[in-house]
Amino acid sequence: MADQSRLDAVITLAQHRGFVFPSGDIYGGTRSAWDYGPLGVALKENIKKQWWNNFIRQRRDMVGLDSAVILPSAVWEASGHVKVFSDPLTESLITHKRYRADHLFEAYEAEHGFPPANGLDDIADPEHPNKVGQWSPIRQFSGMLKTYLGVVDDETGLHYLRPETAQGIFTNFANVLQTSRKKPPFGIGQIGKAFRNEITPGNFIFRTREFEQMEIEFFVKPGTDEEWHQKWMDAVWDWFIELGMTPENIRWFEHPKDKLSHYSKRTVDIEYKFNFTGSEWGELMGVANRTDFDLKTHTDASGKDLSYFDQANNERYIPYVIEPSFGLTRALMAFLLDSYDEEQVPNAKGGTDKRTVLHLDPRLAPVKVAVLPLSRNDTLIPLAQKIADDLSLSWDVDYDDTQAIGRRYRRQDEIGTPYCVTVDFDSLEDNAVTVRDRDSMKQERVPIVVLQGYLAERLVGA
Amino acid sequence: MADQSRLDAVITLAQHRGFVFPSGDIYGGTRSAWDYGPLGVALKENIKKQWWNNFIRQRRDMVGLDSAVILPSAVWEASGHVKVFSDPLTESLITHKRYRADHLFEAYEAEHGFPPANGLDDIADPEHPNKVGQWSPIRQFSGMLKTYLGVVDDETGLHYLRPETAQGIFTNFANVLQTSRKKPPFGIGQIGKAFRNEITPGNFIFRTREFEQMEIEFFVKPGTDEEWHQKWMDAVWDWFIELGMTPENIRWFEHPKDKLSHYSKRTVDIEYKFNFTGSEWGELMGVANRTDFDLKTHTDASGKDLSYFDQANNERYIPYVIEPSFGLTRALMAFLLDSYDEEQVPNAKGGTDKRTVLHLDPRLAPVKVAVLPLSRNDTLIPLAQKIADDLSLSWDVDYDDTQAIGRRYRRQDEIGTPYCVTVDFDSLEDNAVTVRDRDSMKQERVPIVVLQGYLAERLVGA
Repeated sequence: MADQSRLDAVITLAQHRGFVFPSGDIYGGTRSAWDYGPLGVALKENIKKQWWNNFIRQRRDMVGLDSAVILPSAVWEASGHVKVFSDPLTESLITHKRYRADHLFEAYEAEHGFPPANGLDDIADPEHPNKVGQWSPIRQFSGMLKTYLGVVDDETGLHYLRPETAQGIFTNFANVLQTSRKKPPFGIGQIGKAFRNEITPGNFIFRTREFEQMEIEFFVKPGTDEEWHQKWMDAVWDWFIELGMTPENIRWFEHPKDKLSHYSKRTVDIEYKFNFTGSEWGELMGVANRTDFDLKTHTDASGKDLSYFDQANNERYIPYVIEPSFGLTRALMAFLLDSYDEEQVPNAKGGTDKRTVLHLDPRLAPVKVAVLPLSRNDTLIPLAQKIADDLSLSWDVDYDDTQAIGRRYRRQDEIGTPYCVTVDFDSLEDNAVTVRDRDSMKQERVPIVVLQGYLAERLVGA
Repeated sequence: MADQSRLDAVITLAQHRGFVFPSGDIYGGTRSAWDYGPLGVALKENIKKQWWNNFIRQRRDMVGLDSAVILPSAVWEASGHVKVFSDPLTESLITHKRYRADHLFEAYEAEHGFPPANGLDDIADPEHPNKVGQWSPIRQFSGMLKTYLGVVDDETGLHYLRPETAQGIFTNFANVLQTSRKKPPFGIGQIGKAFRNEITPGNFIFRTREFEQMEIEFFVKPGTDEEWHQKWMDAVWDWFIELGMTPENIRWFEHPKDKLSHYSKRTVDIEYKFNFTGSEWGELMGVANRTDFDLKTHTDASGKDLSYFDQANNERYIPYVIEPSFGLTRALMAFLLDSYDEEQVPNAKGGTDKRTVLHLDPRLAPVKVAVLPLSRNDTLIPLAQKIADDLSLSWDVDYDDTQAIGRRYRRQDEIGTPYCVTVDFDSLEDNAVTVRDRDSMKQERVPIVVLQGYLAERLVGA
């Protein structure tokens, strides 16, 4: 199917089936924040679990952390965020709407093939293409959200909501080093919310004012940083592929030297082919070489020595940092898009029907098993519910006794449920059920007594 | 051991062993926010997992949700928070420090046995006990944290950080009802951060400006609400007990009728015996009967009908809500305190040694298995690391080859690790390891080939 219509179809499915709702929907909603419904929270938690298992739990060189969202201004002054984390804004003198100047310049260049020679003077109002150069002077606008702690809203109580989880790792570097017996090369990972005052949110859950990050700060000896950068690039790429991402839909993007963030020696992103209007590829995650910028600036600003003494080699250094940083909700959106398919399948009348299916890896699927009594019958329902309850001790299970069986299969296909277990009247005689595979649609008769084991073999790691 | 010293010992252990660090430690830290280190985040995640499994995944009448932190003012005006969610504050005219007036009154009554007859005029300055009645007039101060979205900090961009996760559930009630095929009685649960402008934070992680809640809003037919209130009281009590909480250390506290929150018909808390200075018991969680207050006020304010039409009985009603609301980090603190013990155990010299141990339920323990090579030896280390890596596919595993074996056992006892696996020189011959049980300290020789199964039997649900 066409890429653009696939994007639209996935966004519709996500909202229609309870993956994602506009936040504050009953109050008119917003483009800039989204709530995750029953299926969305399950999918999101499954991605987190796979990430944590792979990058933290199963690695002897990684530990986890969970730091606070609100940090004092001092941290953001030291990190450079107060100074640098801002966008250039301009206001249309016609509509009084505000725009990011860099976005206006990019749009101009995309259209004309060259940048605007006279800056804003060459740029037309997006809503009034014949009015050119009607803009207020550009000013820098902070992307961090402020809040005030204490009883009066003044500068003494000024705090910021973190725009990235990373700084909470750097400020805890010494504490973790001291309590965990780890030595470089080692890393600290955390999953948590970050907040940005997005002027131009959009593209569904791609850019929102609050979002979840999965970040790793990996501390290495200076001089080994480039080698570790490559190792982490390999590791994060493999993670996506191993979870079923189509290799053709992701690619590396190397940040040009002159556009690197203030802390970075090199940054390489994985982009996913989201096919947004006007931009085919979008950032999924990035791996940055932050050098010793963060530990050095926090050492200077706090007075606390964040260097590491390597006893074996009798030398002291400030570790370099490799940072693989993932957007959790972007990963969720990419996995949804990547697994979505509309297929033509044979129907009973000799023709074909359209089947919508999410071919999600079973480890990511929000529901692992659906248990479906063939009909609403007083004997079938208790047996099916008993089976559902037993399986729910191990997995996310859906029990559904509404509608015709075919429609229930389709509903489970649409949300990516790998296995449907149907309890029919024969089940009362043969103590067996029919297990239907989502991808092949093949059905197999399985004795109830071995059902748990049958599914466990097929749901390893889920 | 004495209750007060146990509290101090646990707080020391938690910080010393990397469960909890003061947030922004290198910048002087704060009493009002804490970061969770490697062991703290693991313990916290284990509590979340047990809660989610028990109350969401394994119940056919529950679904999950994850809603946004920042909601528009309209939501908080409808919910009554803008009007009611505030504390009475007064300022000392001597020190210019601010205090909650109700706390001053309570302290007075605790000391004198009766309330202050003349209000603040009877109250001494806490830092100057001979100066009485030197206070500014009481004024109401909002407990919600503000932030501003958009490009200017004015009222049009005013938003609040949620002080409870509940409202995000109510605003999604209709969306969930429509997409999940659930009918009352059913509930929606979520785990997430909430933020409050705490004027008097303290008691370690008990009262902090950001904290995690585990909340359920359970929707029932009016008239069945009292029965469901009791069912949920039983369910939440059982959950704590089943996870090993000492029954003598928890109790019910019934909120007096005249002190109920504006939305509540009845609220009953579970309190834990924290033994804080000046207050023996502290709130662990509460079960409130919120009636139809929330769905009604949001119906009125949003214009969206949040009633439910019961097709089977052909009647329409606004569901009543039973709300079991847990403080996640309070539960963490209670489980730490409850499992902490200092024991005298026999030593090799015929005397006894002190052993500090967390008798955490294995499902909650941050590390399930520690793998320890008897000594730092080129043959033992690779074998031990191989065993650790294999086990880490299933559980949180610690590998430790530092120090003497006795000290490593003590270290694992202190963090509550249920099983230590020791790899010794005999292991190279008999392909077996020694498994030590944390509680009994008994050791058993187990062939490596059955180690996974041996541990799986003992770590059910972990």
